[in-house]
Amino acid sequence: MISKSLSKYIQSLHQKKYRQEHGAFLVEGAIDVLELCASDYQMELLLVTEPFYKENAGLLDKQRVRLEMVSADDLKRVGTLVVNEAALAVAKTKENRFLVADADEFVLVLDDIRDPGNLGTILRIADWYGIRKLICSQSTADVYNPKVISASKGSFARVEWYYCDLNTYLKAVSEPVFGAFLDGENVHSLDFGKSGYLVMGNEANGISFEVEKLVSKRITIPRYGLAESLNVGIATAVICDNLRRGETARVGAK
Amino acid sequence: MISKSLSKYIQSLHQKKYRQEHGAFLVEGAIDVLELCASDYQMELLLVTEPFYKENAGLLDKQRVRLEMVSADDLKRVGTLVVNEAALAVAKTKENRFLVADADEFVLVLDDIRDPGNLGTILRIADWYGIRKLICSQSTADVYNPKVISASKGSFARVEWYYCDLNTYLKAVSEPVFGAFLDGENVHSLDFGKSGYLVMGNEANGISFEVEKLVSKRITIPRYGLAESLNVGIATAVICDNLRRGETARVGAK
Repeated sequence: MISKSLSKYIQSLHQKKYRQEHGAFLVEGAIDVLELCASDYQMELLLVTEPFYKENAGLLDKQRVRLEMVSADDLKRVGTLVVNEAALAVAKTKENRFLVADADEFVLVLDDIRDPGNLGTILRIADWYGIRKLICSQSTADVYNPKVISASKGSFARVEWYYCDLNTYLKAVSEPVFGAFLDGENVHSLDFGKSGYLVMGNEANGISFEVEKLVSKRITIPRYGLAESLNVGIATAVICDNLRRGETARVGAK
Repeated sequence: MISKSLSKYIQSLHQKKYRQEHGAFLVEGAIDVLELCASDYQMELLLVTEPFYKENAGLLDKQRVRLEMVSADDLKRVGTLVVNEAALAVAKTKENRFLVADADEFVLVLDDIRDPGNLGTILRIADWYGIRKLICSQSTADVYNPKVISASKGSFARVEWYYCDLNTYLKAVSEPVFGAFLDGENVHSLDFGKSGYLVMGNEANGISFEVEKLVSKRITIPRYGLAESLNVGIATAVICDNLRRGETARVGAK
């Protein structure tokens, strides 16, 4: 049984305004909560069902956090998932820390990605392709949105992000800035080099005019049929695959 | 103003049962309806708002179909979209016609893809990569589901599909059957050849045991980070990109 005031607090974290006010966010479901426990995020609160607790008591008892036993119905009532028979955690958000590409590192730059599902998918793709840092425009969806966390399938815990004005940020970088357009150089033949920034644009409008001016290399995914475009998550994955493939080929050729 | 009986008919097509009974499906929104008009689908009915009609009168007047002028509110009421200020069409479904890979052709095989959003995205990816045929297991989502049509962004009109028992179907083919697993041959170094079938499996369980036995080549997308898996739409796109890239390289090397 969750107290009324605690219910109210958890439900307030569905909204960005209250996540920012409290510096806290929700993590829901078995996989995501276990990823959270294994990460360096600080937790405020852990609500678990009895079956989930029994299965994971070893790990859960090690967490320095207030732990409460609740029902699946409780989790459904205070959380955002349609079904959650496992757990819900309240974790502290991290400070918005400046990030920059190291030598030999590629970083993703998101220019106004609005859909939380797309943003979560992009976190998962970044994690698959070993990209550890995202630079997000201020207008990009909030990474701490429960839909983003959930769509990332646990990858939120392994990727870092920095929200900033992309115009100011990209003006200051020295590595190549790749931007995905429909009329750029073919990613199948492009040499990405060994470090840089890959800019992906808004779902409807692509990369903004301001940011476009700071792109040093326009790139494109070749089309073999007639579809007008690819979804931004799909495009991110295909470009990351080409980028990593190129690296492997270069290492192999040495 | 849409009559009560017509409203009821259109709304019934939200459900697979009635789509099959009437042999009809819904196409909604400006882009999709214009794609439909340009395709070889037969239409039963076209509901358009005045602004949409005025913009596209040339094309719309050429359609041999009952056309009614309605309001955006009407479209919202009878359709499935949250916003539709343009048009809604009722089109005849096509018969479930047998399809097979031609020489020099790759065909996608979907083994129990359940999510309509994923299926729509896969249609769009197939269309981008010039793949014209999908073979779908009987348990795969219904392509005529309005969510699939909408997620395909018009690509439904350029891709064909055939629903069948995959076990029977794949036993009869002679071309290679590629299957996406987590432990197959690296798609970055694989030679796909010039024709074949690419099997993508269920969102949670992957390729079924029965179909797995018919896969002649297990393939995998190399991972550079720690995410456990990729979404099936993302994986389809990355594999198609590698498949087409290989073809280009071979043609270039001749």
